[in-house]
This record gives sequence, structure tokens and C-alpha cells, in this order.
Amino acid sequence: MSNISVPPPKCLQKPLLVPHRQMFGPGPSNVPPRILEAGANPVIGHMHPETFEIMSDIKSGIQYMFQTQNNMTFAVSGTGHTAMECAIFNTVEPGESMLSAVNGMWGERAAEMAERIGARVNTIVAPPGGFFTNAAIEQALSKYRPVLFFLAHGESSTGVLHPLDGIGQLCHKYNCLFLVDSVASIGGVPVYMDQQGIDILYTGSQKVLNAPPGTAPISFSDRACQKIFNRTSKPVSFFLDLSWLANYWGCDGKPSRMYHHTGPVTAFYSLRESLAVLAEEGLENSWERHNEVAEYFHSGLESMGLKLFVKEKKARLPTVTTIVAPHGYDWKEITTYLMKTHNLEISGGLGPSVGLVLRVGLMGYNSTKANVDMVLAALKDALKHCHKSKV
Amino acid sequence: MSNISVPPPKCLQKPLLVPHRQMFGPGPSNVPPRILEAGANPVIGHMHPETFEIMSDIKSGIQYMFQTQNNMTFAVSGTGHTAMECAIFNTVEPGESMLSAVNGMWGERAAEMAERIGARVNTIVAPPGGFFTNAAIEQALSKYRPVLFFLAHGESSTGVLHPLDGIGQLCHKYNCLFLVDSVASIGGVPVYMDQQGIDILYTGSQKVLNAPPGTAPISFSDRACQKIFNRTSKPVSFFLDLSWLANYWGCDGKPSRMYHHTGPVTAFYSLRESLAVLAEEGLENSWERHNEVAEYFHSGLESMGLKLFVKEKKARLPTVTTIVAPHGYDWKEITTYLMKTHNLEISGGLGPSVGLVLRVGLMGYNSTKANVDMVLAALKDALKHCHKSKV
Repeated sequence: MSNISVPPPKCLQKPLLVPHRQMFGPGPSNVPPRILEAGANPVIGHMHPETFEIMSDIKSGIQYMFQTQNNMTFAVSGTGHTAMECAIFNTVEPGESMLSAVNGMWGERAAEMAERIGARVNTIVAPPGGFFTNAAIEQALSKYRPVLFFLAHGESSTGVLHPLDGIGQLCHKYNCLFLVDSVASIGGVPVYMDQQGIDILYTGSQKVLNAPPGTAPISFSDRACQKIFNRTSKPVSFFLDLSWLANYWGCDGKPSRMYHHTGPVTAFYSLRESLAVLAEEGLENSWERHNEVAEYFHSGLESMGLKLFVKEKKARLPTVTTIVAPHGYDWKEITTYLMKTHNLEISGGLGPSVGLVLRVGLMGYNSTKANVDMVLAALKDALKHCHKSKV
Repeated sequence: MSNISVPPPKCLQKPLLVPHRQMFGPGPSNVPPRILEAGANPVIGHMHPETFEIMSDIKSGIQYMFQTQNNMTFAVSGTGHTAMECAIFNTVEPGESMLSAVNGMWGERAAEMAERIGARVNTIVAPPGGFFTNAAIEQALSKYRPVLFFLAHGESSTGVLHPLDGIGQLCHKYNCLFLVDSVASIGGVPVYMDQQGIDILYTGSQKVLNAPPGTAPISFSDRACQKIFNRTSKPVSFFLDLSWLANYWGCDGKPSRMYHHTGPVTAFYSLRESLAVLAEEGLENSWERHNEVAEYFHSGLESMGLKLFVKEKKARLPTVTTIVAPHGYDWKEITTYLMKTHNLEISGGLGPSVGLVLRVGLMGYNSTKANVDMVLAALKDALKHCHKSKV
């Protein structure tokens, strides 16, 4: 017989202690007690009728949030990256052409994911803070003839809100599917999946929805399904295979549901609750609130002498604001000071925006003028106390 | 301007109602209040120092549960299937040979996953309820020369506990990595990852650990890392790429951690708590308790005239018991009756065992003699009230 050689770790004898914190970075955002409590309901089976009803409610809530009639609408059991892989793995076959719009972190990651599965990947590139004209997009579609075009609606690494109108129609003109990452934007900014001709749209639970991270709403148009269900090869991932997920979520019209994977039921509870909160407020009210709060925040920043990183006003993401890293300061000292002194998270840049910006997220529940006042006061305090070089 | 065309769904106006239920199927199991409460702590950032400390505690807890010193030990942000794909995606390159031991559902799924990424897959097959001798395994290793051999330790679809001793050594003799699925077994049955020469071992949070589904502990031996970090191609999944995950979990020795994905922080809280519960009881005590309760259960079943599906006593999984579907009954009527009348879940078969068995899981917190008495009484009642054909 073998024997225990690794003893029980002492660190687990200490109780779990989690601080309360103002989560004003680009996500996760604060989770209201109502949603946390929903997630603490008892676990039931991933195939129980009550769970299927909760999943059905989630589907309706996502259809509302996304403004879509797509039947193929559900939540991936994972974070935003899982949804991104779900979209790309299912739509692109090896050797097919994929086009990614890179104006920050997310376009880079989408391109990398497609490369890994053997797609021919092309990119159009804009500098951090920039975005693409429809003419530039059409030119690339015409040149590369991709089967899939990726665009981040809310580029949370740079604070850019990308215009969406007309792009879906352009994609369809070139027989291309339009994939939109709305992780950092949806719920806080108008998106009309069907009217805007978006073929695949996804988000995460932990941004405007204010649920804990761990589920990712996604929807596929009929056009997308048409391509996916006529693939010649199986997607690389069994876990993310749309035909299995469609069955698990009751989207394939089949009378019985097969066991695919064990859905994270408690995460479904909190996701459902977060969608209920959004439905109660109403999308238009939420959009208006985010817009008002962002304008209030942006003018507050400018009157402090700070500069917004995104030049064009209409291209500023109201959920995640990028501030030009204050001249003469070490951005890292500012974020560390705010965390230490104010128990408040704001972030530096990400990927191509590292060193260039500070990022402040005010999403969902967190998007209030009172929170803006708190952030502005904390920033003023930080700029007073952090070291400023004389150069 | 576009307009809202999908109204807020009425179904979300109803409050979320989740029943309490005896979860005695093969998982998820009941989650004790202590673990549910841990998961309801406020969300903090996935890169905050407190989160890294929680992740470090989780790592220690998994090392204890798995009985391993492996530095490359962490939890995948997903369910057991995600861990399975994480193991296979990282270790097998296209064109390489993989061998799967199929004596139920899990060997089939592992084979399918490897096929999807272009591996040459071979299987050895035993009938449901059966298992493999070391001689048969060696023969297959010698014949197919795989780089990876998959074995389910706890075959929850058939109730088989597979012997592990000596197999790791055989694999290494043939320069093959030994991958073990212990989703349904670990914590309830002895496993000694290092001593048994297991190269990759994974489980799920929702079985013996009694945490909600959504995280999957996994560990890689140095031998496994050696192969993985010398790949010539990138794994198909960015999300499951071990080099990224290793950095996120602080397992790669690098001074700074990069943003990879947003970890499901509240699921980490409950996973940590579940590992703390296991460490408090002690592995040996947990193994002994599961063994005693299973023997008590099995003799209770036999004295009711029911038959155990797994013939060899030592190959019976103490966490998930398979009962031969009672002659003359419709198994589906029995499970439905138990759910309706006793608010108690037990399951039918899965994959190759459908129609052959009833499955009862008594895992972690649920593994008590009082629960055995409850299940036996409920089963007696079901056999009295369900329709028995005269054939």
C-alpha cells in the first residue's frame, strides 16, 4: 500500500477572506447583492427541468439584450475567451480565410485563435485608439474574401466604441459572416444584432451584466448556422461544438436533450438574475444612463486637465474610459495608490495600450454619477500624492 | 436610428426559484451551505493579489488531494470536459498516436477529442462494467506506441473503479504519458499521482469536492511538461494553452503574470472552500468513509434483492454505484418516481450503459449512512409503486 506523502496544506486552515472593493477597472465589475445571492441557491442537476427553464429564461434575456430573434442563442460555460473560441472554432474550417480588425488587444487575440486552427488569417490594423471606416473594411473584404470578419465593438484595451452600421451588409455582400465582440459594450450601448446584420455576437457575464465571471452569452444568425452545419470537418473542440451546445440549450428543435457537459448551474442562476435586472431597467434606460454618466465623467476628467485617449467623441466607449496616462507620472504608481488608499480598482493599459492609458470602467450597476464623483476625487488625490517627475 | 424590436421577456419578471433536492445522481452532488456561502463573497479582480493567494491555496489543496508535488497544478476555468480537452490539446500534436481505454462513456469522449485535433487514435475496448488488465494495456502500448494513454479511474457511466497500480510504469516504459480521469473518484478513493506515475490527472469541482460545477482541478508531471513545452505546433486552443495557464497560475516561475482570461473568481472561492473541507477531514478519513458507506449501501441493495452491475467487488466505485436495472421495470419510471415523490435524484445509465443500470452517487458531503437509508427506503417505495411487467 502507498502512503500519504503530501500533507494537508496549512494555508487552507485560514478562513477565506475576500475584501469589498470598488471595481472600476475594465471588468469584472461589482456584483450587486441580489445577483450574488441568486448564485448561492442550492445546486440542482444540469439536466433537471428547472435548470432547463432557467436556461430558457437566459436565452430570452440574451435575445432581448442582443436585440435578436435568433433561435441559436445561449450562454457558453466559460468566460469571454471561451465564447470567442466557440465563435471561431465553429465558423472557420482549416484553410479558410479569416479577417480580423486589429485596433487593440481583441483583434489580435481573435487572429491568434483562428491561426491556431489552421485558418489563413489577414488583418487590418489601426493604431490604438483608432478605428476603421466602412470603406477600409470593404476594401479588405474584397481583397481577402474571408469567410469570417472579426470586429470588437467595445475595444476595452483602448476605449474605442466601433461604429457598427453598414458593416454587416458589407460582409454579406462578400459572402462573409460578421462576428462582433461586445464583451465590454453591450447593455451599455445600443446594439441591434438583427438590424445590424451581425452573424455572431458574444459578451461576458462580468461587465455591464454585473454577474460573476464564468458565463458568456452568444448568439448565431441563421446565416452563421447555415455555414456551421454544412462544415466538412468537425470543429476542433467537442466542448464548444455548436451542434452539441445547440442540443444542450434546446436550440436544435430535437425532442430530447443529450448529456454534453455539466453546465455551471449556479453561474446560470446569477446570469439569469443579471438579465432580469437589465430587463427591469430596460435597455434604452440603461443605454441612456451609461451615456449620461460617461459624459459627466469625461467632462470631469477634462476639467481636471486630464486628456481622453480617444479623440473622436462618438468613438468613446461609455463603459470603459481610457485616459491618456498623465504626463510625468508612473501610471503604475497611480493605480497602486488608488488600490491601497481608496480600495478602488482602475487599470493601466492592456496589450498595445500598456503605458499609454489609464482605464476606468463604470459598467451596469457601477455606472452612477456618485461613482464618477468618487473616482474623480480619488484621481485628484492620487495626482497630488504620486511622484511627478519634473521633466 | 434603429429601434427596440425585441421586448423585455416576461419570463424574467418571475423570481428565480430553485428547489432543494437530494442530489444522489452521479453529479453534481449537494453543495454544503459553507461552500455556497464562500461562493457568494464579493467579486474582486482576477489579477488582484488576494485572488492570486486564493489560487495559490487552491494549488496546494489540489496537490494534497492528488498527492503530488507537481508544480504545474491548478484549476481549469471550466467543467471536467474542459480539463479533458486541456490535457489532450496540450499533450497531443496532429498525427501523433493516442490510445484510449474505452470501458464506458469517458474513453469514448477522450478518443473523440483526440480525433478532432488530428491525432491517430486507437482504442482498447472492454464491455460496460469491465476493465483492463495491465497485460492487455501493455500489449496495446507496445502495438500502437501512443504518446498518450487515457484511462478513466472512476468510470461513472458504468460504476467501475479501475485499478491504477503499475500502469504509469508501463506507460513510461513505452515513452507514453499516462492521463487519468478521476472526475468521479478522487477524494473518495485512494489516488497517489506521483507514486502511481500518473502524468496528467484531472477532476471536477462538483463531485466529491461538493463545490458547484465550473472549475476543474488538473495537474501535469514534469515528464508531461517536458513534452508539452517542446511541441512543434501550438495547441489549437489559446484558452487552454498550458503555457498561458501556467503563467496565470504562477506555475512557470516568471516574475510577472500576464492577462490570459478572466478567471471565474467566485468559483475559485467555492473551490478553495471545498478543498479546505477535504483537508480538514483528511484524505484517509474521506476514503475510509466513502468505502464504509458504499459497503453499507451495497449490502443494503443486495438484501433488497437488487444486483450490482460491477461483478468484481474491488472494481466497484464507492462514489457512484451502478445497480442492474431491476427486471420487469422501466428504469425511467423509477427515476421519475423518485424525483417526483421523494425529491431525490438518481440516474439511469449514460452512453453504453443506458437501459442497463440505475446510478446512485454518494459523494463527499453526501456519503453518509443516513443518506444510504434514505435512498434504500425510497428505492423500496419506488419498486412497490412503479409498474412491473409480468414477463
